[in-house]
Amino acid sequence: MTNPSAVLHEINDLRIEDRPVPEPGLGQVQVAVQAVGVCGSDIHYYRHGRINDMIVTAPMVLGHEAAGTITAVGAGVDEGRLGELVALEPGLPCRHCDQCREGRYNLCPDVRFFATPPIDGAFARYVVTDADFAFTAPEGLDAVHASMAEPVSVGVWASLKGAVGPGRRVLVLGAGPIGLICAQVARAYGALSVDVTDLSSDRLAVAAELGLGTLSADSALSHEVDALIECTGSAAALAHAFPSVARAGRVVLVGMGADTVELDLGLLQSREIWVTGTFRYANTYPTALDLIASHRIDLDPILTGKFPLAESERALLAGDEDPHALKSIVLPWA
Amino acid sequence: MTNPSAVLHEINDLRIEDRPVPEPGLGQVQVAVQAVGVCGSDIHYYRHGRINDMIVTAPMVLGHEAAGTITAVGAGVDEGRLGELVALEPGLPCRHCDQCREGRYNLCPDVRFFATPPIDGAFARYVVTDADFAFTAPEGLDAVHASMAEPVSVGVWASLKGAVGPGRRVLVLGAGPIGLICAQVARAYGALSVDVTDLSSDRLAVAAELGLGTLSADSALSHEVDALIECTGSAAALAHAFPSVARAGRVVLVGMGADTVELDLGLLQSREIWVTGTFRYANTYPTALDLIASHRIDLDPILTGKFPLAESERALLAGDEDPHALKSIVLPWA
Amino acid sequence: MTNPSAVLHEINDLRIEDRPVPEPGLGQVQVAVQAVGVCGSDIHYYRHGRINDMIVTAPMVLGHEAAGTITAVGAGVDEGRLGELVALEPGLPCRHCDQCREGRYNLCPDVRFFATPPIDGAFARYVVTDADFAFTAPEGLDAVHASMAEPVSVGVWASLKGAVGPGRRVLVLGAGPIGLICAQVARAYGALSVDVTDLSSDRLAVAAELGLGTLSADSALSHEVDALIECTGSAAALAHAFPSVARAGRVVLVGMGADTVELDLGLLQSREIWVTGTFRYANTYPTALDLIASHRIDLDPILTGKFPLAESERALLAGDEDPHALKSIVLPWA
Amino acid sequence: MTNPSAVLHEINDLRIEDRPVPEPGLGQVQVAVQAVGVCGSDIHYYRHGRINDMIVTAPMVLGHEAAGTITAVGAGVDEGRLGELVALEPGLPCRHCDQCREGRYNLCPDVRFFATPPIDGAFARYVVTDADFAFTAPEGLDAVHASMAEPVSVGVWASLKGAVGPGRRVLVLGAGPIGLICAQVARAYGALSVDVTDLSSDRLAVAAELGLGTLSADSALSHEVDALIECTGSAAALAHAFPSVARAGRVVLVGMGADTVELDLGLLQSREIWVTGTFRYANTYPTALDLIASHRIDLDPILTGKFPLAESERALLAGDEDPHALKSIVLPWA
Repeated sequence: MTNPSAVLHEINDLRIEDRPVPEPGLGQVQVAVQAVGVCGSDIHYYRHGRINDMIVTAPMVLGHEAAGTITAVGAGVDEGRLGELVALEPGLPCRHCDQCREGRYNLCPDVRFFATPPIDGAFARYVVTDADFAFTAPEGLDAVHASMAEPVSVGVWASLKGAVGPGRRVLVLGAGPIGLICAQVARAYGALSVDVTDLSSDRLAVAAELGLGTLSADSALSHEVDALIECTGSAAALAHAFPSVARAGRVVLVGMGADTVELDLGLLQSREIWVTGTFRYANTYPTALDLIASHRIDLDPILTGKFPLAESERALLAGDEDPHALKSIVLPWA
Repeated sequence: MTNPSAVLHEINDLRIEDRPVPEPGLGQVQVAVQAVGVCGSDIHYYRHGRINDMIVTAPMVLGHEAAGTITAVGAGVDEGRLGELVALEPGLPCRHCDQCREGRYNLCPDVRFFATPPIDGAFARYVVTDADFAFTAPEGLDAVHASMAEPVSVGVWASLKGAVGPGRRVLVLGAGPIGLICAQVARAYGALSVDVTDLSSDRLAVAAELGLGTLSADSALSHEVDALIECTGSAAALAHAFPSVARAGRVVLVGMGADTVELDLGLLQSREIWVTGTFRYANTYPTALDLIASHRIDLDPILTGKFPLAESERALLAGDEDPHALKSIVLPWA
Repeated sequence: MTNPSAVLHEINDLRIEDRPVPEPGLGQVQVAVQAVGVCGSDIHYYRHGRINDMIVTAPMVLGHEAAGTITAVGAGVDEGRLGELVALEPGLPCRHCDQCREGRYNLCPDVRFFATPPIDGAFARYVVTDADFAFTAPEGLDAVHASMAEPVSVGVWASLKGAVGPGRRVLVLGAGPIGLICAQVARAYGALSVDVTDLSSDRLAVAAELGLGTLSADSALSHEVDALIECTGSAAALAHAFPSVARAGRVVLVGMGADTVELDLGLLQSREIWVTGTFRYANTYPTALDLIASHRIDLDPILTGKFPLAESERALLAGDEDPHALKSIVLPWA
Repeated sequence: MTNPSAVLHEINDLRIEDRPVPEPGLGQVQVAVQAVGVCGSDIHYYRHGRINDMIVTAPMVLGHEAAGTITAVGAGVDEGRLGELVALEPGLPCRHCDQCREGRYNLCPDVRFFATPPIDGAFARYVVTDADFAFTAPEGLDAVHASMAEPVSVGVWASLKGAVGPGRRVLVLGAGPIGLICAQVARAYGALSVDVTDLSSDRLAVAAELGLGTLSADSALSHEVDALIECTGSAAALAHAFPSVARAGRVVLVGMGADTVELDLGLLQSREIWVTGTFRYANTYPTALDLIASHRIDLDPILTGKFPLAESERALLAGDEDPHALKSIVLPWA
């Protein structure tokens, strides 16, 4: 096969198929994908065939947390980039709408995002993407760590929305991969304190290993927080933590799952709390790569499994086999 | 009587009583109150004896939207201010806590606010307050209009929180006094468009008279809005309007009443909408006074009744007598 | 001639020549230019052949303040736009660099800007541009007024940089076309006060006619200002006005001409004044068009001359003939 | 002596004199001063008797970087604070002016600042100050390190003004005590890179020891910077570094000395650079104390001398004896 790819056909039906090797067009690069992280959204498409109104109606390659090596460049791209290790920002915006022109390209209604129907993802040997969305990895980074610029970008975006910085106290709900990354990013942003809650003591143990403060999910927080970063998608978790938010504090809703969010209006008003949700990220990749390369984000306790492309299905299901599994990586060339 | 005052004793029990004339202390001024607006909160205390956890447990003078003339100054205050017409910002913060030092004094936990238990209000001939919270009215303003710097401040705060300005489309829910003021303030901030909704066609007619766009409450908005200013306190109104909020838009919850607010999480996230509530205002009085004095806020269609102090109870109940009543003014010296 | 154009060959050598009618490419529109404003930069290129390091080394069409009618659309553009009156934002950014992705496309190092060497401008019957940089004029606007979205954008950008809004006092240095526009935009942004200074009493008379505060250039300002918008390019004017800037105030340098700007360091520090310069604008066209269409910017006293394309040279030199001339408009189809 | 104090009488005339022990008034605390840093401004008053228009016209105690133990509390202050180690923010604002109410209390025109004429400073065994400007030191901090919350606050303010954070490249001019602190604070704020320049290779060696990037003052910076923090007061240093500032970058002028600052207008405009100066700081002490206590700021290479109160003059002159001296500490009880 020239470009073996892991293609979702139906619910619970992932097949390794050959696809043509894509050629880079104007301003594009062709990348030999070396590592792709498995995200909860990949698992969700595999199991449910949809996420909200994004429905898989035709076979689609999964995977959007990718890094690899530039193997060809299209017209207008510096040939000196051949051979570069790059992290691939997975969403290509239209560059022409109001959101794009104002720098909020993550909100572009016409964004084409890896492994979001009908766009194919990166569980494949080769992909093409726009050259400016293929970010050169800093020296010393390998492809597995570079691929994590995607979830780390989610964390960077959460810290930016939460105005995290020195002097600010942060509480992260959820010690899954995104929660553990958001918490570490908040620390890298200089937060005064970062605590993580989870129902699972195993996951809290990972948080503790990473040097983060931990709190069992049902305990009361001993102090107020300036930023609450919600990474569970659980309405109950949010409701429990909301009274801990300080005056002028911020609540950033990263976790998906609930249909609605219910907030205590009296608290929201009397403390003038700001609440928002995040949708991916914009302009975060260079920062995310630097945080990883400078070891301010420790990914190793989170990276719990590596799988060749042929075993992509096992990578998606790693959590079923091992409850301690956090983040699986697919290696298309292994 | 030297200082007749309208004192709430029990639910539905408002009495005109004499109180001692207060003397100004260090840094304070004594003000002969010329006009005081009736706010929904005054009516609520009168009818229910409480607002949330703020409970009237001892007789309390009502009224917090006041303007009047400086009749005496305490130590440290410029005697040149004697005779000045001033608008009184009703909440005196502690000036020492974190919130005060950071300029968010409206969030001071120890603020003393007129007619919020146990602090007496301004339905009285004389009050004292801190000199720097008695703002000199611009030339040409009378006491009735100067007293409206309080509700106009609510509108200024809403526009600030909503990032209202040229190019921004605004929707205001509710055409009561606060809604009509918020909408006019948004226009004064330069908004591209300002529309107001209400269930009452009478109130919408006032909005139209003020030159504002109007929309019946059950109709769909024809365009997206960048700022949604909620002034009804109705969860249903908010839920109906929320899908109109544009990407990166802001929702400002001014209206009280509901215990909780429920938001569509998918919209909140996919559009990265910001939601907050307002609690009074800070540093708005000079701006509010200027907006009134320069006729950018037209209060006349809103000022629907004037009452002498002896008829304060009628002022509170004006809405029962006349469904068109919007804002009553108590004139302590009339 | 199919596309008569006013081409600058050498200093003081402007020729009307025929150029091919440009065809719109992918995502582009062809526009029949109906009106183009003459900017100081056009005059400067005509007289000096350069502005700083931007040097005219080959014949170049002048003009960048353009509006016209869409006469053809390229692939991917809605045909419904044919016939639309549009204002043309003159700088097309690369859309791929850091500045573009972050929404600061005016700082794109590869921007292609009308009438900035080597890019041809819009003193011509036909131009093509990207569809999303051709902004639909609001109903009721004619081409002459729509073309003024360009200088009005300069004013919008200045007000944004200066954080102009209600409660803020503004001083504009210079009552030329840009100063008069900046001042009116500041007023539309809700400024508490807007004063304009100029050496010329004629120009101040225009400011007064527009309802702006005026101040002779050598007089002292009676009050502090929160935003100082410099539109003269004169170092002396700035030095004279700088001590009027209030604590935490902002200075926005719009005017060009001086090589360096010298600031009193003690004032800059003890008042924590912010100083910046503007370079064109970004994301301002819809707002600028709305400000013009809603008559919040009165352009008529500024529009002092209209010339057919054949008299473009006279349009450039209008100020020599008439010291009262402010802004000339070239009409390519007249 | 009950309250020996180091009093500046004339230029070069510092005397140890007894002063009455001050008693705390309402809302105040009495503090036994354990450590006071020597600042360049103390040395400047000693040598020149003035800084700009702040002139020593009567004997004045020097010193404003103080920490100590609460020995008495005034009315309204929690007695539980007795015995607390506190860092003293040296400027008490009026709390009533516009600047104070808006949270910019460092710009209060009536601030009373330790050792700024005519206010006495803290080279003394006892001082009183307002309770809310005496910040509880985190556990584990000693008085010497707590006193450094003052210069660290200067650094925090510079990073805030410079919008320093992850992804931002920082250049600090000057490797004196303030430069070394500003650079470390920028790192704690998560900066992508922090480089320091100085004419002195000795000082650069200290910077290198602290793990900071170093650059000889005459070399060219290899990359652009997003924040330039000027700590030398040298116009030449600023002029040399200014072309390194990136588009939309910020220049923060901390160093004093020059009368004026001259900036390249073309660069300021074409890159839309923001320039400001800092005047002390506001709301920084808790953050500064946390940065010290968590060892994100290493002060030990900077703390080069400790002196008993009796040798305050030697502390001021330490730099004359030893060119490697950076920061001297006076210990009033040693």
